[in-house]
Amino acid sequence: MIIGVDLGATNIVAGLVDAEHVVVRSARAATPARHGPDAVLGRVAALVARLAVDGVEALGVGACGLVDEHGVVMETTATMPGWRGVDLAAELAARTGLPCAADNDGNAAALGEAIAGAGRGSRAVATLTLGTGVGGGLVVDGEIFHGAGAMAATFGHLKVRRGGRRCACGSRGCLEAYASAWAARQSLGIDARAAFAAARSGDDAARRFVDEAARALGVAFADIAHSINPDVIVLTGGVSEGWARLSPLALETYRRHALTRAFATTRVVRGDLPRRAGVVGAAALARRRGGGRQGATASSATSQRQLRGNR
Amino acid sequence: MIIGVDLGATNIVAGLVDAEHVVVRSARAATPARHGPDAVLGRVAALVARLAVDGVEALGVGACGLVDEHGVVMETTATMPGWRGVDLAAELAARTGLPCAADNDGNAAALGEAIAGAGRGSRAVATLTLGTGVGGGLVVDGEIFHGAGAMAATFGHLKVRRGGRRCACGSRGCLEAYASAWAARQSLGIDARAAFAAARSGDDAARRFVDEAARALGVAFADIAHSINPDVIVLTGGVSEGWARLSPLALETYRRHALTRAFATTRVVRGDLPRRAGVVGAAALARRRGGGRQGATASSATSQRQLRGNR
Repeated sequence: MIIGVDLGATNIVAGLVDAEHVVVRSARAATPARHGPDAVLGRVAALVARLAVDGVEALGVGACGLVDEHGVVMETTATMPGWRGVDLAAELAARTGLPCAADNDGNAAALGEAIAGAGRGSRAVATLTLGTGVGGGLVVDGEIFHGAGAMAATFGHLKVRRGGRRCACGSRGCLEAYASAWAARQSLGIDARAAFAAARSGDDAARRFVDEAARALGVAFADIAHSINPDVIVLTGGVSEGWARLSPLALETYRRHALTRAFATTRVVRGDLPRRAGVVGAAALARRRGGGRQGATASSATSQRQLRGNR
Repeated sequence: MIIGVDLGATNIVAGLVDAEHVVVRSARAATPARHGPDAVLGRVAALVARLAVDGVEALGVGACGLVDEHGVVMETTATMPGWRGVDLAAELAARTGLPCAADNDGNAAALGEAIAGAGRGSRAVATLTLGTGVGGGLVVDGEIFHGAGAMAATFGHLKVRRGGRRCACGSRGCLEAYASAWAARQSLGIDARAAFAAARSGDDAARRFVDEAARALGVAFADIAHSINPDVIVLTGGVSEGWARLSPLALETYRRHALTRAFATTRVVRGDLPRRAGVVGAAALARRRGGGRQGATASSATSQRQLRGNR
């Protein structure tokens, strides 16, 4: 048994995952994001303690934001202040007594779908997590592909319309500015579920928003097919629950923008592990890395300093 | 010693390459493209015969068009008709008596730059070949990354301006429609070198073309950094000779469109192996694959049928 944790800016979900990648028990709590890393890490440790049973071997964490392949947070974000330089794996190993591995949440979700979900049997699996923002992950031959600076698969910032809508990142025309809950909030003042409902009931602004989201996804699929040509692009996250509405226009836009063979060889599907890809993937990460960091390294001067001193 | 061949739609370049990846002798001929595969393969074999010396162990070929990782041509193109299904590696092994490995020319160039050029020492190397069209290649940990359908790194068809200029592929807004010799010909009626010269001497249309090419490259760099995040993007091909003129605007556009850490970790440089990256890479390919196909497989029914019967 391994415990997998999906650490988001809004919620923390922890699950007890068996060797068949099944979540046998789970627990959830709000993320005390504005109280800083110490409070959040304490909350994660408390959830882990609630799930811990005899025979739990390790802890895996997929965390939002820019987290490198060693589980160290590289940049702080507006929603999660004060995290820069925090060694997630070491800190959680110290707080739980379990060996801990950590990575970015998009990569954890991709690993979950690749080994136990819609990507099973595929060599190259890309995921697009359409949530508050748009995350991504890439798994090749069963391993997470991080790139030079752990920025591979940051698909939310592919340019789908140059000079288009302003994105949260400061640039314009990013996928995230069209196909995320944040974009729905910005454009319509409502959440994504409400946007789909309004579009269904004929609201013009909502229909335009949903159609633009679909077209933006289609262009992004083409760009992913022309750069990585994965076997499959797996869609996860809350906004992907609207895929039935999005898919005709998204796939037609993809087809129009892609070379015939790129479109034919990179499929797009919804994920098979709704709301648990991240937990399953995080557990798999810990299994892969033999648990990663042990508690002992958590007392490293750098990590302690970061926890005490940074913004 | 290995012979590397860069088989383009216009020219064939063959080089005798030593174990240090140095081209010690080379030969060149026009590609008799409209006479079909048999004539072209015969011309390649004749060039190889001119270079063959005692101790040549194998032949490697990087060929234009859609060539899969086994050296089989997947699609025929307007400039190279009649090639669909031709097993390049097997055919050339039969004609030369040398074991032969073949791949796409973009991938061969990427392998050349990765092992002996500007990508040396980098784990992930992407190349953009700015020639008649825009080709690409991707090498990760010393191996060519092909993707699900050998369509990875077809960067020429990244969408840099949705609904923008018509591309040779039939779609709109592809990088190739902005930053290739074909694009210069379409927009200005002149070749790329003449376009740069005209821009230098103040011609307004040429300046606009060159500036649009630079911006298109900047957006493509951002998309490559946000999907693959390679250590380096290496520019090769004739149009890259104008990099001094293109780079200020291209890099500024890249910076504006990329997340800070993506821009900081994916560098853009010109290639170190002008006009020979493809030959060096093709030779390396043959070295890697232990020569690939032996002559014996060339008589396969499929391949012979393709050579006789197809368009």
